[in-house]
Amino acid sequence: MKKTAQKLQNLKGFRDFLPADKLVRDQITAIISQTFEQFGFAPVETPTLEYASLLLGKYGDEADKLVYSFQDRGGRQVALRYDQTVPTARLLAQYQSELPRYFRRYQIQNVFRADKPQKGRFREFTQCDIDIFGSTSPLADAEIVACTYASFKAIGFEDINLLLNDRQVLIEALQPFATDQVDVLSIIQTIDKLDKMSEIDVQAELVDKGLSANQASQALSAIQAAKPSENLRQIMTAAEELGVPNQSLIFTPTLARGLDYYTGMIFEVQLPQYPVGSCGGGGRYDTLIEELSGTAVPAVGIAFGFDRVVEAALELELINPKTAPAQVLVGQFGPETQAETLAAAAELRAAGLRTELYPAFDKLGKQFSTADQKNIPFVALVGPEEAAAKKVAVKNLASGDQTVVSLNKAIKMIAAATFE
Amino acid sequence: MKKTAQKLQNLKGFRDFLPADKLVRDQITAIISQTFEQFGFAPVETPTLEYASLLLGKYGDEADKLVYSFQDRGGRQVALRYDQTVPTARLLAQYQSELPRYFRRYQIQNVFRADKPQKGRFREFTQCDIDIFGSTSPLADAEIVACTYASFKAIGFEDINLLLNDRQVLIEALQPFATDQVDVLSIIQTIDKLDKMSEIDVQAELVDKGLSANQASQALSAIQAAKPSENLRQIMTAAEELGVPNQSLIFTPTLARGLDYYTGMIFEVQLPQYPVGSCGGGGRYDTLIEELSGTAVPAVGIAFGFDRVVEAALELELINPKTAPAQVLVGQFGPETQAETLAAAAELRAAGLRTELYPAFDKLGKQFSTADQKNIPFVALVGPEEAAAKKVAVKNLASGDQTVVSLNKAIKMIAAATFE
Repeated sequence: MKKTAQKLQNLKGFRDFLPADKLVRDQITAIISQTFEQFGFAPVETPTLEYASLLLGKYGDEADKLVYSFQDRGGRQVALRYDQTVPTARLLAQYQSELPRYFRRYQIQNVFRADKPQKGRFREFTQCDIDIFGSTSPLADAEIVACTYASFKAIGFEDINLLLNDRQVLIEALQPFATDQVDVLSIIQTIDKLDKMSEIDVQAELVDKGLSANQASQALSAIQAAKPSENLRQIMTAAEELGVPNQSLIFTPTLARGLDYYTGMIFEVQLPQYPVGSCGGGGRYDTLIEELSGTAVPAVGIAFGFDRVVEAALELELINPKTAPAQVLVGQFGPETQAETLAAAAELRAAGLRTELYPAFDKLGKQFSTADQKNIPFVALVGPEEAAAKKVAVKNLASGDQTVVSLNKAIKMIAAATFE
Repeated sequence: MKKTAQKLQNLKGFRDFLPADKLVRDQITAIISQTFEQFGFAPVETPTLEYASLLLGKYGDEADKLVYSFQDRGGRQVALRYDQTVPTARLLAQYQSELPRYFRRYQIQNVFRADKPQKGRFREFTQCDIDIFGSTSPLADAEIVACTYASFKAIGFEDINLLLNDRQVLIEALQPFATDQVDVLSIIQTIDKLDKMSEIDVQAELVDKGLSANQASQALSAIQAAKPSENLRQIMTAAEELGVPNQSLIFTPTLARGLDYYTGMIFEVQLPQYPVGSCGGGGRYDTLIEELSGTAVPAVGIAFGFDRVVEAALELELINPKTAPAQVLVGQFGPETQAETLAAAAELRAAGLRTELYPAFDKLGKQFSTADQKNIPFVALVGPEEAAAKKVAVKNLASGDQTVVSLNKAIKMIAAATFE
């Protein structure tokens, strides 16, 4: 073992989550999973590492550079999970016969990007995905949209904007401006920047790509004036029938989304009360799985940007970050009542109370201050008198009230006061 | 994008978990987390990647070879999480001032080993850790032992053997046999193999290391006849006071555990009904954090081998692997009743029922067979007659019974039949 202390730090772009943060994250994960299951999605898990060849060439050239790949000791090119869509596509191809018709799966795991770390951008972060496989019906798209809305609603967000578009809307509006030098996908990629760049800069980029100034301006007008496709209209109607309020469904013809693999509906979640960009995005991708596996499996889904959702929920105070894991601290009076003290802790736990046992015979003042520091609302103690009377002394740290009661009464009291 | 399908496979030693498996794993994870929180442990999360220098030199020479390390694009030597103890030691040193006295944390994440994949041995697997920091009291050791017992009990295991020893027992019994050529740690490492090797082979290895045949035999007798230390006796008493049955606490003087960093109690979980070795192991390590950080923080904890726990729970049928995520499939009668059908799905979900919407206008027979295939117990349908009467047709797939009722009644019926 090393005998000298070393400099201790995380790799840049990688984070630790201490209990206050982790408890909030776990709480939001639980709400999201529960909503996903309420919509009939079933969980899957894929490995952290895959063959690099599986991931490369799937996300577009820009994204390929961000795939966190390396050579392992066996000389294999491997890569850390970049998203959850491509590994699931592999899984669909690999386990076709085992998976049910219209398979709907959810997946909540960390993904990795070999990105330059900066504020709010990390090399490891969590994604929450839902996808429905095998259906080309707008009903499947609507289920994804409705489940997304329900998830954000369940966390407590009031204003939820779902920006929707259809790749066909973009292609039909912009195809007339494509030339030999600049294809329609390239025009779409520039249009996609309208949420970050001014119209003038977007037009300038189109001119740089080879359009005339007049064409660039017309292309912009054409997409801004575009109407929803029949497919998108059906999706929006069905989503409304599934309970999404009309005002949350916002047709946005300039929305393009970066990834190459979308083929139909595309959509994005924005929270007007926390306007920092997209909190999730997805769409229909009917060809990706066939390209991977040779078997055609239409698909539609979304990935939530979990970190931004957590940030927004904290900022808007939807989740209480101070949740203490324990409801009661059982203090130590002294070795002479250890047996009764430990038996009391066991009974509090058996009654379902989250109970921490103080692991030392420290002064009582130190024990109370520890409960305070940990936000534990009650301290229970068994001294010789309580032990003789088969009772327990319970102190409510908020009110300062102290009372000596039977263990049953203590359980009821603490449970009632810390009911969640 | 690649236009031809490629060979799809996982990297060796890495696994996918489809819903049937993942649901069982999630269920067991939830039971374990809940038990940990009942003992006052709070969750933390550390990154998948760390500086390799943090992990190397901590686990002993054999284990060092299994650290999954590589050079990243920035030229840094990095490594995938090998266990959860060393990253938590870093965290303790790094966030000292933010963490409460007698910090107790739990951590459930995947770890990685650059091991030769073989049956039951994986390169990525899940560990569940609990540790108490800052206390040298046997009460802290007893809490870890009691929480371990309670976790296995909560999953449903009946027979739980906790094999306990104290490093001091080993050192005191074996120190007399140490020589200039073979130190006591080396003797302990050989003694540790008694669960896999015969006594004769263990003696032979001691002879190989430099002991005489007589000394080797005496060393073995000495450790087999050793008595528990006063420290271990106190831990076992306190664990019993905390509710662990006496017959589950088994003093095992030959138990050594491999890792170099243990300093006091060591222990291991075995399940006599599923005798495939250890399902978890831990102990006290009072010097590791000081070696890392320069600050002395005594610590005691355990890591459960999650995969073996899951295997054992399935083998003993403690967990039902067939849990279907959805309680009801809302079928599609046709486009003419889409609005009423989707509204029914929304109401079933609002009532808390896990509800899958059939995402296509397929023949009814195909819809019923899909519910069957997915183990969904009920199918609800809204045809024109039901829509007119504001009712819903509900079919119980197990009994074949079909009935037309109000949505409220359908909700009660399905909830009652699928109550968990």
